[in-house]
Amino acid sequence: MAAYAELKKRFAQISAIEGASSMLSWDAETFMPKGSSDVRGEQLAALAAVAHEKYTAPDLGDLIAQAKEEKLEGWDAANLKEMERIYLHANAVPNDLVHALSKAQSETTHVWQQARPENDFDSFAAKLEPLLVLVRQAADAKAEALGLSAYDAQLDTFDPGMRTTKVDQYFDELGAFLPDFLNEVIEFQSTHRQVKPLDGETPVGAQEALGRRFMEALGFDFNHGRIDVSAHPFCGGVPGDVRLTTRYNEKAFSTSLYGVLHETGHAMYEIGLPADWRGQPVGQARGMSMHESQSLFLDMQLCRSDSFLAFALPKVREAFGVSGDAWEMENFKRSILQVKRGLIRVDADEVTYPLHVMLRYRIEKALLSGDLQVADLPGYWDDEMEKNIGVRPDCVGNGCMQDIHWSGGALGYFPTYTIGAMTAAQLFQALQGQLSNWDSEVRAGDFTQIFGWLRENVHLRASSVSMDEMVNDATGSVLNVDVFKQHLRSRYLDA
Amino acid sequence: MAAYAELKKRFAQISAIEGASSMLSWDAETFMPKGSSDVRGEQLAALAAVAHEKYTAPDLGDLIAQAKEEKLEGWDAANLKEMERIYLHANAVPNDLVHALSKAQSETTHVWQQARPENDFDSFAAKLEPLLVLVRQAADAKAEALGLSAYDAQLDTFDPGMRTTKVDQYFDELGAFLPDFLNEVIEFQSTHRQVKPLDGETPVGAQEALGRRFMEALGFDFNHGRIDVSAHPFCGGVPGDVRLTTRYNEKAFSTSLYGVLHETGHAMYEIGLPADWRGQPVGQARGMSMHESQSLFLDMQLCRSDSFLAFALPKVREAFGVSGDAWEMENFKRSILQVKRGLIRVDADEVTYPLHVMLRYRIEKALLSGDLQVADLPGYWDDEMEKNIGVRPDCVGNGCMQDIHWSGGALGYFPTYTIGAMTAAQLFQALQGQLSNWDSEVRAGDFTQIFGWLRENVHLRASSVSMDEMVNDATGSVLNVDVFKQHLRSRYLDA
Repeated sequence: MAAYAELKKRFAQISAIEGASSMLSWDAETFMPKGSSDVRGEQLAALAAVAHEKYTAPDLGDLIAQAKEEKLEGWDAANLKEMERIYLHANAVPNDLVHALSKAQSETTHVWQQARPENDFDSFAAKLEPLLVLVRQAADAKAEALGLSAYDAQLDTFDPGMRTTKVDQYFDELGAFLPDFLNEVIEFQSTHRQVKPLDGETPVGAQEALGRRFMEALGFDFNHGRIDVSAHPFCGGVPGDVRLTTRYNEKAFSTSLYGVLHETGHAMYEIGLPADWRGQPVGQARGMSMHESQSLFLDMQLCRSDSFLAFALPKVREAFGVSGDAWEMENFKRSILQVKRGLIRVDADEVTYPLHVMLRYRIEKALLSGDLQVADLPGYWDDEMEKNIGVRPDCVGNGCMQDIHWSGGALGYFPTYTIGAMTAAQLFQALQGQLSNWDSEVRAGDFTQIFGWLRENVHLRASSVSMDEMVNDATGSVLNVDVFKQHLRSRYLDA
Repeated sequence: MAAYAELKKRFAQISAIEGASSMLSWDAETFMPKGSSDVRGEQLAALAAVAHEKYTAPDLGDLIAQAKEEKLEGWDAANLKEMERIYLHANAVPNDLVHALSKAQSETTHVWQQARPENDFDSFAAKLEPLLVLVRQAADAKAEALGLSAYDAQLDTFDPGMRTTKVDQYFDELGAFLPDFLNEVIEFQSTHRQVKPLDGETPVGAQEALGRRFMEALGFDFNHGRIDVSAHPFCGGVPGDVRLTTRYNEKAFSTSLYGVLHETGHAMYEIGLPADWRGQPVGQARGMSMHESQSLFLDMQLCRSDSFLAFALPKVREAFGVSGDAWEMENFKRSILQVKRGLIRVDADEVTYPLHVMLRYRIEKALLSGDLQVADLPGYWDDEMEKNIGVRPDCVGNGCMQDIHWSGGALGYFPTYTIGAMTAAQLFQALQGQLSNWDSEVRAGDFTQIFGWLRENVHLRASSVSMDEMVNDATGSVLNVDVFKQHLRSRYLDA
């Protein structure tokens, strides 16, 4: 197995280089002095160029062909399959286009960062248009190499195996359900679920300590990870050295707390990946949809369940030294389950969130195909927001310029948020059916069994099988919209 | 100039990769969770391997040969010369030996870290012996490629152009001077320079604020750098993103403070290097002796001068809210200029420090040549310490096992500390002769002219000329021991 052994060595090296990049990106968002972004940019570009060189080494294709003759089995066979997928993606796009894209992406992101707060759509559009030309070229090149449509090639970058036909099916069903459901929930909550404001001080120090307490209870290993502050929360680093970030808001502690729990879900997935396959393609997380399912499993499923709240609320009250009606279970629960029509995706609750995603999905497909022109984007966005969510943006900064994704050329990413939400619901439902004592354990702050189940059914399987297969094995059926709808109905109307 | 242009591109990329390594090493000492050292080790090894690949690319020698035909001038010619020096060093040692060395170095360092506190010389020796075999092989290989002796090849690694003949000359003179001088100073101080203890609280928070205040006054740019805490202070990062560290000791604040000033000296050198040549070999610091001269310029020359103390002491008193006799100038000055015989190099004053270095210089030459066996090291060390410094180690941890250098295979590094100290003295003397208002400016906290002089005479010259030439241009003579002796005499006896 000389060829496969050589491939393993090379992919391990690339993984270490990409791990180094990941740490530097984390540092750029946390501790790096503001003036050093140009130097950091050069370092990241150099590492990206080295990784690209290695993915496109002239003999890599031959090595893969030879390894296929080596009759690999099990995880080794799956590993080789992943290597080939990565190889095809990386080699589909010519070097010149890779560089042009990378340059256009960082320029567009830079302009977007300045233009968004100024609601300056023209400056943004002037960069986005030429970027989209390059994104289209790259998507076409990948489409040809992979035998897919252009948008499917984009989807496959973020969520291997995901296809437009599947997304359409999920989103058609959700689209038929959500708008009416949203009306019902808002009506219901306004009459039966009035919320008293959570009064009292929630200082940053206490929020931080509380977050760490929950992270420890959930099993986060501070010997192999940290939590710090950044402008936008994320889970970075590498499996053996996970770097979470969050931001604290003294006026809305629960947003910060659920932010920490969300990122902890991402972290637990990375930590739970099989150590023996670290650095190999098959040892990586299955894709961004599955990753989002793990963050939302904590954020939206487990940690907003009655069982978790029974464990958590006394600790919340203790942390801030608060009491009174507002901090009783019923009101606290209402407060973290409030549904509201809003303009901003990242602030959205789980009912409206898919509507934000579906809008972006329709738009990015149309931008890629050329059916929608950049100049028509603000008008189309605002009309659709009004039609589907019932609110009209007051400015482009709160409208079509609110997200960073398109500036980075990441068309095809948005669907993973909602597929992740559906997957989380389906996994949590399955777990409840399979583990008899989960409820009493969670109430007692014992999450061993829960994470044991997630490890076995998701984390430890890494990329050894497709997401479809993993979901089917874990839950008894492939991903479907019914469980998600059922979850929403039971949480927001039937309860 | 196609070949030279290609070389510039390649060296810039290697510099960015090494810059990435530097940031990751900084993180490993500051924020990295303890359990993540193995993952970090893999990342650093991968980046080192990539840099080595690029230094030993099959066409690099041809490119250098072609560039030599391109009739470069000035800084470009100097840059090419540095490229060739780096190329010769990197290509002298065969790949297998590079990997074996790197493995043996990290193993020995690992064992040293555990064995030192346990005074376990045997475990350390068992690793050091085979490491020395590899170090000798590498030094021999470099010696042949560079046309130098083995130890000179080692010296040249850390201080380009430094040779045993020069070091011998400096150290013979110093060796003839220092032991008697040390006796005189200790005698003098015990009768005429009794020190009252600096009483009062010096909490970490106040030390930190004070350190930052001095760093700012000296011109450190916090928009392109930071200061954090690590077990061993160092100056890391890259010129556009300098990462200092220190450690705070509430029982000995001046050690921490002068530690900060020392590292700030290193930092100001990196920051002052010519921005136009960033990432190119000629744009780098001239070598470790010159680097140490810049840290000691602050630590031992400027910041222990009467002029600086007149500026600094009121701020020290203010920071800690202290007063009284002990905090008057005369006593404060005595306290930071105390000379003591001691076992530990890093705690040594500037009079005994060179004696520590000279001992290590003699030993490492003998270890490299095989004239001294590892088994005989502790006995030889202890006898020499007693003979030259007048104290005998109580254990190997405070004796021959106190330094990390040899575990890392860094034979040839130690002389740079004392050559740096001599250079700092000579630069400071020259500066005082050339700048008329320096004293009143420093007393007023204005360091513009001082750093202007250092920039012009050292920092901005980077590696464009040899250290000999730079010292000669700046001070009117090549490095010599007299100025250093004169400095010690005037500070410790004549004052």
